[in-house]
Amino acid sequence: MTALTPVDAKALADIALFAALPPAVLEEAAAMARTRPLPRGLRIFDQGEPAGRAHALLSGGVRITQAGSDGEEILVRLIGSGEIFGCVPVLTDGLYPADATAIVDAVELSWDPADLLALMQRHSRIAINMVAIVGKRLGEAQERLRELATQSADRRIARTLLRLLDQAGCRTGDGLRIDFPLRRKDIADIAGTTLHTASRILAAWQRDGLLISRNRHLVIASPEAMDRIAEGN
Amino acid sequence: MTALTPVDAKALADIALFAALPPAVLEEAAAMARTRPLPRGLRIFDQGEPAGRAHALLSGGVRITQAGSDGEEILVRLIGSGEIFGCVPVLTDGLYPADATAIVDAVELSWDPADLLALMQRHSRIAINMVAIVGKRLGEAQERLRELATQSADRRIARTLLRLLDQAGCRTGDGLRIDFPLRRKDIADIAGTTLHTASRILAAWQRDGLLISRNRHLVIASPEAMDRIAEGN
Repeated sequence: MTALTPVDAKALADIALFAALPPAVLEEAAAMARTRPLPRGLRIFDQGEPAGRAHALLSGGVRITQAGSDGEEILVRLIGSGEIFGCVPVLTDGLYPADATAIVDAVELSWDPADLLALMQRHSRIAINMVAIVGKRLGEAQERLRELATQSADRRIARTLLRLLDQAGCRTGDGLRIDFPLRRKDIADIAGTTLHTASRILAAWQRDGLLISRNRHLVIASPEAMDRIAEGN
Repeated sequence: MTALTPVDAKALADIALFAALPPAVLEEAAAMARTRPLPRGLRIFDQGEPAGRAHALLSGGVRITQAGSDGEEILVRLIGSGEIFGCVPVLTDGLYPADATAIVDAVELSWDPADLLALMQRHSRIAINMVAIVGKRLGEAQERLRELATQSADRRIARTLLRLLDQAGCRTGDGLRIDFPLRRKDIADIAGTTLHTASRILAAWQRDGLLISRNRHLVIASPEAMDRIAEGN
């Protein structure tokens, strides 16, 4: 528990959960929010513990991972700025379904789950925005499932990179850069393959000039070529 | 487009989307709904077409499948009575993300997407119920992803059967029966394995008395033993 710092309502306008809301509602939500810096490496919450807060990221990046009863782990999602995380338990069983760790220095907003629920009850637009966000993630999870069941590792890795570009891409001089620092292990985990296979495929793409690795960031030199690999052409 | 038949508001009380709503709201939603019989085998909607209606199942079962650009298909979900389907596009891109087919004679309710959106705007509880439903499905999709990436086929099939019991199980004299008619191909598709592997595993469990197949339905004779397989013990 950190000290309360007043939250600027303008910061909330960049969070998809609060899209298309009048200033008065943003101020109401800001008044209930707490802001907190998340130093790189910080474990924000643990899988299975009561969801004490509902979170949104103002800047930085957060890795969401989930382990099974056998300890095997997958990377569920990378959270970028403007995205919510650890909010669904408010409406399900009240337990965080996964671990969350800051992958760079980051800043979050958070709410008491009861306050977020009250906000959704008073302003249906917030609940509707949340359906859209969770629905889009469900669509992506189903896409990943289909890929994992039916597609080769290189196509899955290409799709993974394209989805990350879609989520957090920015244009640079030599291509499109993914705005998350990524280890090869992260790519392997998201694409559902082994570190060995992911390393082999990424190294080949780097040799071919498709991909550039710079300061723990990946730059896709040719999104068109990546798209062709993803489509199996 | 079938003729309008008046819908009994009481029927809506069994649909999770309308849980915990006062009778007046159920009547409002019923007045906007259309009911329609779905004969077994009917294709209810096609992946990629504009989502002309938002659906809920009053009785029967519906298979939701999704194909990739390469034609490879997965079984996304089986929908049982009281569940919604084809409702998320109302809040995302307006296109059905998958195909829906009746697997037994069934009855659905449906709404004009604009009417469902208006209902959610007026009654935040409906939007909140939808977050809970979609959030639960997201959790299940992530669980399937983790299993597919990390677990053996027999454990994935055992988890699939246990999840189906959870969704549509009923007690019989010799165990717990899954209330959907299931082909071995369905089990294989949900668990993300081949028909050959699923058939081999299911046949072994039938020989061992763990599983009984009767009139296209599966009965789990010992849910405890199935649970041990799912947990890898």
